[in-house]
Amino acid sequence: MSENQTWSLEMSEFARKTDNPLRKIWESPNNIPNPLIKLITLQIGDPTVFKNFLAAPETKEAIKKALEHDNFSYTVSPGLESSREAVAQYVNKNYESLTILKDLQPLTSKDVILASGCSMALEMCFRVLANPGDNILLPQPCWGYSTWIVGCGIDVRYYNLDPMREWEVDLDHLESMINENTKAILINNPGNPCGNVYSKEHLLDILKVAERHMLPIIADEVYEFFTFPGVQFYPLAALSKNVPILTCSGLTKRFIMPASRMGWIVINDRNNVFSDVRKGLFNIAGRNFWPNSTLTKALPDILKNTPQKFFDDNSSAVYNHALSAYNILKTCAGIIPIMPKGAMYLMVKIELEKFPKIDTCFDFTQKLLNELSVGVFPGFPCFNFPGFFRIVLTVPEEMIIEACERIKQFCEKHCKIDSEKYLKSG
Amino acid sequence: MSENQTWSLEMSEFARKTDNPLRKIWESPNNIPNPLIKLITLQIGDPTVFKNFLAAPETKEAIKKALEHDNFSYTVSPGLESSREAVAQYVNKNYESLTILKDLQPLTSKDVILASGCSMALEMCFRVLANPGDNILLPQPCWGYSTWIVGCGIDVRYYNLDPMREWEVDLDHLESMINENTKAILINNPGNPCGNVYSKEHLLDILKVAERHMLPIIADEVYEFFTFPGVQFYPLAALSKNVPILTCSGLTKRFIMPASRMGWIVINDRNNVFSDVRKGLFNIAGRNFWPNSTLTKALPDILKNTPQKFFDDNSSAVYNHALSAYNILKTCAGIIPIMPKGAMYLMVKIELEKFPKIDTCFDFTQKLLNELSVGVFPGFPCFNFPGFFRIVLTVPEEMIIEACERIKQFCEKHCKIDSEKYLKSG
Repeated sequence: MSENQTWSLEMSEFARKTDNPLRKIWESPNNIPNPLIKLITLQIGDPTVFKNFLAAPETKEAIKKALEHDNFSYTVSPGLESSREAVAQYVNKNYESLTILKDLQPLTSKDVILASGCSMALEMCFRVLANPGDNILLPQPCWGYSTWIVGCGIDVRYYNLDPMREWEVDLDHLESMINENTKAILINNPGNPCGNVYSKEHLLDILKVAERHMLPIIADEVYEFFTFPGVQFYPLAALSKNVPILTCSGLTKRFIMPASRMGWIVINDRNNVFSDVRKGLFNIAGRNFWPNSTLTKALPDILKNTPQKFFDDNSSAVYNHALSAYNILKTCAGIIPIMPKGAMYLMVKIELEKFPKIDTCFDFTQKLLNELSVGVFPGFPCFNFPGFFRIVLTVPEEMIIEACERIKQFCEKHCKIDSEKYLKSG
Repeated sequence: MSENQTWSLEMSEFARKTDNPLRKIWESPNNIPNPLIKLITLQIGDPTVFKNFLAAPETKEAIKKALEHDNFSYTVSPGLESSREAVAQYVNKNYESLTILKDLQPLTSKDVILASGCSMALEMCFRVLANPGDNILLPQPCWGYSTWIVGCGIDVRYYNLDPMREWEVDLDHLESMINENTKAILINNPGNPCGNVYSKEHLLDILKVAERHMLPIIADEVYEFFTFPGVQFYPLAALSKNVPILTCSGLTKRFIMPASRMGWIVINDRNNVFSDVRKGLFNIAGRNFWPNSTLTKALPDILKNTPQKFFDDNSSAVYNHALSAYNILKTCAGIIPIMPKGAMYLMVKIELEKFPKIDTCFDFTQKLLNELSVGVFPGFPCFNFPGFFRIVLTVPEEMIIEACERIKQFCEKHCKIDSEKYLKSG
């Protein structure tokens, strides 16, 4: 080592482009509330923080039982076969009750791959379908899929969701975004951050676009069945025999186990057009993406024993929170809440032109935090959707109400008709 | 969709190049023993299979306790701070007792990132340091690191370990393999598949090469302290203040928890030359590579409460297995076992020229399985080291002895001086 040399070590492009804006804001030292006012954070989509939503008791029972017999032994790369079979049965049951198709071939363990969380499952799907330079179509707004894509040199292209039509996909725009390098369409239903839940008819329209362009779909259904009273969820793959679909889900949301790290991919491939992709997924599973052994062994019991009442109670409670929030927010000056149909979130449009001292949604959310200690995620950069913010609906109801009252107070303070701004833009 | 078109969906290059040869052989339908003879498999490095090696009772106690209070809540991306702090303390204690350096700055939670298993930890290290087209230096033989590297477009270059010198690194060869695209040297100590444990002096020599070329080291120390009686393990990072080292380890081997999926990276960076790389690792952690929450919460107790006797007993038992195997194998015609100093494996050289009907080590291991139902992994493709096979030492002693007796029988049958072959090669 020459004395003049110094170490010069840089992170890779992969690391530099791997950017999780939600976690970056959440973990940022600038995420500072007003020290005089108690913080209410509606940021991270983790319903367990205040213990008002917790996993069902059956879950811990299942893990306890599994732990007794678990030797932490390795299993095959795609995950323990009996647990993959349990996922297949769980999904088959859901499909059977909701399909519109005759003679839908039931899934088996061979169609299921377990992964360390739904985000690992999604990562596997992105990486098996696209090469660097290819692109994947994402909804706009959407949760941070690009975190898993862009670092790999794969491009993202965004198709619009329409806030005026309950966040349905703008099908013409979706179709216009497809090009020769597009390798898959991601559909997130029920959706984060919008709380969209699509009708059967709308899902069939989406499937038609995929079929016309012969593009597979990655269906992020981690919020499956997390819908408000009267709203029906349809698993996308129960509606098509032709379009190959990789459905990702896990215990994260429906089973209220965010950091348990149990996700899965269901390979829906009725016409054997995914045979090479299936092999590729099994190759990638060889990177040891599998989940913890104890939880894997508990999975069949968790899927079987968690009572329907648990799911229903959670959805109802979130629905009530949504209503409470919506009813306050719709009376606030300068913002427009959009009532969700499921999942755990509510998106709010900011009429920025009415806030003379606020330039962006990021600015709005920072000031809201600094002044009134309410934490919410801005539409940009979090969801690639400027001019909005998202609130999480799973905190206790009195806290949501208090937070929304503070948002109202914030809007009253800052919302003005800025004649100068108007003159300029006019 | 035109009627003439058909779906044409291929796996990505990433998936195609992600090849785990160990798991491929293990999970292959051709992995077939003689149906008349009971299978003894010495293939996968999982000591729990026959329940003679199991995690300490303290482990399950810790997990049970953690489960009581675990809400499966999200934590920060690099993992729960208290558990990262526990890893830092555990490592500090090891360093303190073994370092040759004065005033070694203790590590803190900021220097630790948790990951879903040591292989995820290694993946993060490979990906933070190298771009496509760069290369990482790997030992030859080695465990399947390339599974995590090649699919990413990163190259591997191999430096020789010398079986005649207790698998020490051939330092001249190592140095000759460094080129302008080399971004890191991987050192595996104690090592898989060789069972090498390097002396302090040898490690210092390796560090000199790294320092001279200003290359960081990825130290895979997942077999840390898993050494035979009288053999001392030195954590590489306890021996250098200058070379930046990413040390990877986990609960997998020393704590006998293979599929628990708890690994970690320790960022050893005394001169702040890894500051960009450190940021990059935290970026990559934002891909949700973290381990299961219950296990994460149990980690401090597992590290603290597992008694030294547990480790000592395991090492002694594996040592006895190694001796038993070695003593039989050294009497076999045409093969040469190399006595390990630690870890859980023993490598055996095949003098292929003495086996006229056997062309490769792969062929040797397949025939051994098909004829006498002994499963071992061939040096190639498993460890990129043709002409050898590896046996796993953790199966019960009577099984190792029986397996080695069968290997002896196999050698007696197949080992011949093939004069024709000799004439040709002569």
